[in-house]
Amino acid sequence: MKTIDLNSDMGESFGPYIMGNDEEMIKVISSANVGCGFHGGDPLVMHKTLSMAKANDVGVGAHPGFYDLWGFGRRQIHGERPEDVEKTLVYQIGAIQGMAASLDMEVTHYKIHGSLGNMACVDEALAMAAGRAVKSVNKDLLFMVLPGSELEKAAEKLGLRCAREIFADRAYDDNGMLVPRKVDGAVIHDPDEAALRIVKFVEEGAIFSVTGKKIPVKIDSICVHGDTPSAVAMAVKVRDALKDAGIEIQSIAKTLA
Amino acid sequence: MKTIDLNSDMGESFGPYIMGNDEEMIKVISSANVGCGFHGGDPLVMHKTLSMAKANDVGVGAHPGFYDLWGFGRRQIHGERPEDVEKTLVYQIGAIQGMAASLDMEVTHYKIHGSLGNMACVDEALAMAAGRAVKSVNKDLLFMVLPGSELEKAAEKLGLRCAREIFADRAYDDNGMLVPRKVDGAVIHDPDEAALRIVKFVEEGAIFSVTGKKIPVKIDSICVHGDTPSAVAMAVKVRDALKDAGIEIQSIAKTLA
Amino acid sequence: MKTIDLNSDMGESFGPYIMGNDEEMIKVISSANVGCGFHGGDPLVMHKTLSMAKANDVGVGAHPGFYDLWGFGRRQIHGERPEDVEKTLVYQIGAIQGMAASLDMEVTHYKIHGSLGNMACVDEALAMAAGRAVKSVNKDLLFMVLPGSELEKAAEKLGLRCAREIFADRAYDDNGMLVPRKVDGAVIHDPDEAALRIVKFVEEGAIFSVTGKKIPVKIDSICVHGDTPSAVAMAVKVRDALKDAGIEIQSIAKTLA
Amino acid sequence: MKTIDLNSDMGESFGPYIMGNDEEMIKVISSANVGCGFHGGDPLVMHKTLSMAKANDVGVGAHPGFYDLWGFGRRQIHGERPEDVEKTLVYQIGAIQGMAASLDMEVTHYKIHGSLGNMACVDEALAMAAGRAVKSVNKDLLFMVLPGSELEKAAEKLGLRCAREIFADRAYDDNGMLVPRKVDGAVIHDPDEAALRIVKFVEEGAIFSVTGKKIPVKIDSICVHGDTPSAVAMAVKVRDALKDAGIEIQSIAKTLA
Repeated sequence: MKTIDLNSDMGESFGPYIMGNDEEMIKVISSANVGCGFHGGDPLVMHKTLSMAKANDVGVGAHPGFYDLWGFGRRQIHGERPEDVEKTLVYQIGAIQGMAASLDMEVTHYKIHGSLGNMACVDEALAMAAGRAVKSVNKDLLFMVLPGSELEKAAEKLGLRCAREIFADRAYDDNGMLVPRKVDGAVIHDPDEAALRIVKFVEEGAIFSVTGKKIPVKIDSICVHGDTPSAVAMAVKVRDALKDAGIEIQSIAKTLA
Repeated sequence: MKTIDLNSDMGESFGPYIMGNDEEMIKVISSANVGCGFHGGDPLVMHKTLSMAKANDVGVGAHPGFYDLWGFGRRQIHGERPEDVEKTLVYQIGAIQGMAASLDMEVTHYKIHGSLGNMACVDEALAMAAGRAVKSVNKDLLFMVLPGSELEKAAEKLGLRCAREIFADRAYDDNGMLVPRKVDGAVIHDPDEAALRIVKFVEEGAIFSVTGKKIPVKIDSICVHGDTPSAVAMAVKVRDALKDAGIEIQSIAKTLA
Repeated sequence: MKTIDLNSDMGESFGPYIMGNDEEMIKVISSANVGCGFHGGDPLVMHKTLSMAKANDVGVGAHPGFYDLWGFGRRQIHGERPEDVEKTLVYQIGAIQGMAASLDMEVTHYKIHGSLGNMACVDEALAMAAGRAVKSVNKDLLFMVLPGSELEKAAEKLGLRCAREIFADRAYDDNGMLVPRKVDGAVIHDPDEAALRIVKFVEEGAIFSVTGKKIPVKIDSICVHGDTPSAVAMAVKVRDALKDAGIEIQSIAKTLA
Repeated sequence: MKTIDLNSDMGESFGPYIMGNDEEMIKVISSANVGCGFHGGDPLVMHKTLSMAKANDVGVGAHPGFYDLWGFGRRQIHGERPEDVEKTLVYQIGAIQGMAASLDMEVTHYKIHGSLGNMACVDEALAMAAGRAVKSVNKDLLFMVLPGSELEKAAEKLGLRCAREIFADRAYDDNGMLVPRKVDGAVIHDPDEAALRIVKFVEEGAIFSVTGKKIPVKIDSICVHGDTPSAVAMAVKVRDALKDAGIEIQSIAKTLA
């Protein structure tokens, strides 16, 4: 039976500030990318998120970002040396591994957040820094990357296991890259359309660009966003459509174990 | 041959802000209590501090504090549940363990910083939270505590290994507790006096109070402060006096290994 | 015609993190206590909140708190000198006055947030610091205080104009003080009950304690909370009940102008 | 008698963290650019710095920067809208004006810090945002700018008074722009050389580039850096050389008053 992973960012609340509907989303997905306190998340939120993941048998990933709470890791911060960014990632991976240990759990994957992730997708030095960070703390973590990105190449160069993800609600161009958000049609808002599309992608082992071009890629995981009001509804649609098509939802860490 | 550990807080710089003279202090001590980013320290500082500890064969300890950079962990923060404080400690221990792993090192001890440490010395619930935190992430860490404090009792209740420390530059009262800083004579400023006193304490296995009362205690480590201009000079005096008395300086983690 | 002020805390969102439903609440109240960036709020949020207040003809107050975003100003922070707390308040008042100036508006009142407010209610030195802060930056701001508190006394000693507020949803004891939240019945959750009660208080110029004791107090403003899901509904009930009783809702700054 | 202003950044310490030697530098300069809490500085530091400026009859300027304490405002942060950056500047100007008011002082100039300043020097939209910010809060503040920069143009477009500054320790290229720090010879480390050069610049009303080209510019102020160990020594040399040449050191705000 074919399986696929469904991942979402969560654990990005901070103190009294709530981000996303983690309680509902955790029931839908198979892998949670958990904020590590630099762009979002804090020790209490992390503890609660990991506890929910354990209760729902959801795989846990480190989801580190820029040290920028105010910008939620979405501001593009330049002028840091890659080897320094690397240390900030090491710290965050360690922190979530400590929390997981305290709950008798294990972190099983790793996905870079926000602007740092986007920048590292197209910047070899940053991508290698991101790869070295996880390799040096825990080389067994699955590195979740965009197919074709510098992050994927870095993972391969460093001999890291990686998981390729595609986005449920984002359009792709003919090079297999994401259409920038500013472009009309870049984001798919209709849950049914997103769900239908994703089933097709998974069944065919390929993404289809906005012009209809078929681009074969390895697809290990589907990312559903968590921080919009309709996020859970979209995730449920995608999950149900996949199940209806006979595709089981399972954590990629478990699949590859 | 008798040995004793010499410990000091370090790695508490932040970004461009320098705290203490870590480069010199690391050459004098045998155990470094390294800031974990909540009251001081950041991933770059932590990386540099651990690297220096490795190069100088100095034992590394997690030195977590309140989430309060502005107050440097010295503001007394009330109204947090002990189980929540516990999670902030877990996070910080994990972070430094991750950094140590990235440098092929191990964290070997654990000491609470500032006001949280002081509050936990006299608050059973906080002390137990501090103990549970380290037990849940890494029960092998040596818990550095003040003899007679709630932290020591918590360590014993939880079956944690612990190391008892005394302060090189602080006066003790007849109950073996620190004389509050506000009281005249609470802090010993003369390095020679401090050094002489410490040799006596270590040789006799006892502290002597301000009234001259002898209070036998187990002494595993001597804490020298790192954040005053004269800190290194004081530490050098203490170290040299101990060596002259035939007492070797050695990391307590190594001694108890 | 009798008038009363209705005040609520707002502008306490931070970056991507939303707190409260300010867009709706601003339509109901007459005075907004606006976060100043230390416990909540940021320059963008402050700008937006002031703009909304202007559009809705709502009076604007500085609402400064402890420098503690993570704790949202609700952690009790000890060990700061009152004269230092004073400077943090001065800074925050200045910041919101700058923002108001940039929008051709004026700040007209001042209310301390959270734990700092609670602590200053019963601590003369803190209360005087809070009073000196506003006096030194802008002595014309109305100081919003609890009747009978140290804040009220400080305002009187310093010759500051002040506005007395009562809480729509909190029970009072026989001394006219708030029943602590932990006590059963301390918080009134039923909007109708809260509304009825407040009308009675305003009409009689007195609060009635949990035992039914009548305690005459000067009532200038009613505080409705803004950070719970049902907050707006409660505020609407209170406002409508007051209006139905022939009491007009008007900013206290306008009333006293 | 010819006069010139000598300015330096200060008030950028934070909590227990000391930056620069403000106590000494304040005796040498005539204008202090005071950190406003976003990249450095805090209310206590600001209060102390303004008090020292008052005691030494030194002009006080708002010195706002990116909201980035860890990076000390030196990280280049992209992806913020200019109108949002504007609000962060408004907030900071307001904060320091509040503090000045509490000390019966006035802020008289305005200078953007670090990366934000550098970015605004070459980015028209950012420069206009920086100009609008000060115009909307206090249009009387003197805007300190680099001659030839977008900041100078923005000040002119917006009808703001401005003061042109040159750097004591930085080399200029043939276009009158700073030689990038990475280039050999970009920074002048010898205090005597810096002093000699500056006297020539001021006397001739021109800067001389690395190739010897004379570029006439209006020079109102000379910036001496404050955050290196040798900063005060450099500033003293520059001041003494100017005085020896018969040029009086006077705050530009006073000169233009």
